Amino acid sequence: MKNYKNILLTTDFGEESSPINERAVQLAKEQGAKLNLIHVAEYLYSYSYMAAVVSEAEIQKQLLEETKTQLAKLGEKLNVPPEQQYACVGTPKHEIIEKAKEIGTDLIVVGSHGRHGISLLLGSTSNAILHHAPCDVLCVRLKA
Amino acid sequence: MKNYKNILLTTDFGEESSPINERAVQLAKEQGAKLNLIHVAEYLYSYSYMAAVVSEAEIQKQLLEETKTQLAKLGEKLNVPPEQQYACVGTPKHEIIEKAKEIGTDLIVVGSHGRHGISLLLGSTSNAILHHAPCDVLCVRLKA
Repeated sequence: MKNYKNILLTTDFGEESSPINERAVQLAKEQGAKLNLIHVAEYLYSYSYMAAVVSEAEIQKQLLEETKTQLAKLGEKLNVPPEQQYACVGTPKHEIIEKAKEIGTDLIVVGSHGRHGISLLLGSTSNAILHHAPCDVLCVRLKA
Repeated sequence: MKNYKNILLTTDFGEESSPINERAVQLAKEQGAKLNLIHVAEYLYSYSYMAAVVSEAEIQKQLLEETKTQLAKLGEKLNVPPEQQYACVGTPKHEIIEKAKEIGTDLIVVGSHGRHGISLLLGSTSNAILHHAPCDVLCVRLKA
């Protein structure tokens, strides 16, 4: 079996997500894989209230700019070059799956949360990715 | 971040599961991890019909013996020594999670199925493991 060649690391920029990042970087190094980074800024319907002031297109543009800035910072930290950084606006599950297909990812790295004591729940986005991914998925357990 | 040290490969002995096995073997090699193998023979309530002929204890014993034999074959193929083979009878989800905790596993490798065309569903056991695992989980996508 061949090594992974094209890893897609999903990030929500959360402080607790550094074990996910570290795991993806370590695996990419060991497997000799290209490491890609994606963040999807979720477009919330509540933003439509703002549309009275600024247009929806403007809101999306601002979300995208902000995402690109944050991705660039994280990319620098993790040694992921700009052309392997993907900033998107939309529904995280959908955008991540589509990007994985588009760039031929063979491993998606997501985080999962341990919450509510014994009952461990995956984040809903991670869960959706697990069910629809075209490839392997590594679920990195975050400590509660 | 440290490499994985203790990988638990779940198997259902299915013919289609060889990509899961290969991935676990490859990762264990690259990460320098100990590879453990587990199969849980599911104890079905329908077996209780048989209890009129043979005792429940006898059924469990036979299931366990059969599991051990199959595990030994697979273990030999994958170079997993007998002391790292775990044959269990019970509820797969429960037994796998308990064994993972007991032996200090840091990565559980499971399979997921692509079925029903576009809609990809994880096997229910894999899904349950993902939600209750004390550690990372690698979900190896099997082609439909």
